[in-house]
Amino acid sequence: MTLRTALTGMFGIEHPIVLAPMGGVAGGALAAAVSEAGGLGVIGGGLGDREWMDREVALAAAGTGKPWGIGLLIWGIDTDTVSWVIDRKPSAIVLSFGDPTPYAAAIRDAGIRLLVQVTDSDEAARALDAGADVLIAQGSEAGGHCGGRATLPFVPSVVDMAESTPVLAAGGIADGRGLAAALTLGAAGALIGTRFEATHEALISAHAAKAIVAARAGDTERNRTLDIARGSAWPAEYPARTLRNGFLDRWRGRDAEMIADSIALQQFRDAATRDDLDYVPVWAGESVDLIDQLESAGEVVRRIGHDAEAVLRRTAEQCVDTPR
Amino acid sequence: MTLRTALTGMFGIEHPIVLAPMGGVAGGALAAAVSEAGGLGVIGGGLGDREWMDREVALAAAGTGKPWGIGLLIWGIDTDTVSWVIDRKPSAIVLSFGDPTPYAAAIRDAGIRLLVQVTDSDEAARALDAGADVLIAQGSEAGGHCGGRATLPFVPSVVDMAESTPVLAAGGIADGRGLAAALTLGAAGALIGTRFEATHEALISAHAAKAIVAARAGDTERNRTLDIARGSAWPAEYPARTLRNGFLDRWRGRDAEMIADSIALQQFRDAATRDDLDYVPVWAGESVDLIDQLESAGEVVRRIGHDAEAVLRRTAEQCVDTPR
Repeated sequence: MTLRTALTGMFGIEHPIVLAPMGGVAGGALAAAVSEAGGLGVIGGGLGDREWMDREVALAAAGTGKPWGIGLLIWGIDTDTVSWVIDRKPSAIVLSFGDPTPYAAAIRDAGIRLLVQVTDSDEAARALDAGADVLIAQGSEAGGHCGGRATLPFVPSVVDMAESTPVLAAGGIADGRGLAAALTLGAAGALIGTRFEATHEALISAHAAKAIVAARAGDTERNRTLDIARGSAWPAEYPARTLRNGFLDRWRGRDAEMIADSIALQQFRDAATRDDLDYVPVWAGESVDLIDQLESAGEVVRRIGHDAEAVLRRTAEQCVDTPR
Repeated sequence: MTLRTALTGMFGIEHPIVLAPMGGVAGGALAAAVSEAGGLGVIGGGLGDREWMDREVALAAAGTGKPWGIGLLIWGIDTDTVSWVIDRKPSAIVLSFGDPTPYAAAIRDAGIRLLVQVTDSDEAARALDAGADVLIAQGSEAGGHCGGRATLPFVPSVVDMAESTPVLAAGGIADGRGLAAALTLGAAGALIGTRFEATHEALISAHAAKAIVAARAGDTERNRTLDIARGSAWPAEYPARTLRNGFLDRWRGRDAEMIADSIALQQFRDAATRDDLDYVPVWAGESVDLIDQLESAGEVVRRIGHDAEAVLRRTAEQCVDTPR
């Protein structure tokens, strides 16, 4: 059995599951593993570091003959980066966190599918105007950077706006129940991040993966503090959901004070060199509640796909004919 | 056709839809209309004002012979209030925002079903220990007061904890897609608030109902500001999602300053006497995106129930057998 949606049809894939292009975490091996298992793997190209992308694209191409994609952060890229990515011939480019309009035509002209992640209705309208092939409606329960809407009400509202353009749900989905819910909301599939962080193929330290497996949703928090401390230029409208840690507990609500504290910032940089999780961000969504072991990415794709089918069939059986 | 779940079986009702006991807004007429249409109407008893509840209970009893319930805010009630409510013989009592343990035995001994709303996993564990018959897992996209979790990942995590105890989903649900999603997440139904505010039977001013219909999710915001301004004793851990207004724009992030500003507080009180929506809270969840007209509550119940069935059947058809 399999699930057929507008997404699986568009890419000729088996499961309506897309790997979130987690910057630096979703490398070529993870993308290839997701694609090989029947999903759509997407490399997290972030701000477009050529050396990193070159290596990871080679790994993806070596690991699978099936479709895969590359994701970029719109706020930190330019047309050169997009051209370079187009030349790598991915099946899909995912653009997130900014205005995709300047890049849409070049991507479309190259015959590459453009997926645009949106975090509110204004961004959804802009992505539709830009001619996106797929919209990704992302909720604030997602791990890493996100906007302010919640997935459950946001997805159907974007579906209503998008009419015939397929919509994916992102944020808070880590199992077959979540994928099944995404489909009932009218989505053509789900974009999944945090669940794939806790896989053998993710580019993440063993102790960070372990922390994700151990964490509860209440251990996560949206903040700008850790972006500011690490000197990242992320726009203020997109805070990041990370695991709580000691540095965050110390500086919560005092970002301005922290920026002025050169000793604290030096301590942060020192801790970062040793990857000390009491300082550095571990991106994690509220779906950590549903993640209890480190697995291979292929197992995750297959289980979520099959469980979603089983859930849909079982739930539909709750519909019964009654005499009127 | 109808949907059969543990909830519909428990109360012998037609649709797995429960009216959120919105304090002061969910009166007897609204509760009766929801129950008559096949859902479970629950009067929003709030802090237990006897005169208000007496009138609304009479309206509910006069309006329907079907099961209905009463909701109370745990942090502001005592055993006398619970005894008084038990004596009204509702089919269900919904306890929210606090520890239900001191009241559980009396409710159970009276043969009344105890539904406990929870906003995080600690509250879920406590409600199970107290012997709740049903847990309501509420996300922060809900209108009015709420905790910090999002409905989509929170519901399945509570379902996993609750084992055989039925769980309802609350927060962000306003149509058949949302109810269908709740069921695929493992819930036995949905508790719905904001959608029922925009009905003819809700105890809400015409201009507040109109504001809800006109609003987008981005017009809502979680805050304590309006609770503080109106002198309400709501615990700090439960901010309220309301429509944005001028008072909130003026005082956002400056609650301590506002409390010290007697002129601002007097202005607020003056505005409250004329129900000026630029000052007073209009409770509204992110599901306002999905609400585009004022309707009768019965129509809402029937449409959501029937649409959820149709969505489940249609989505399950996306599961297709394929040769292996």
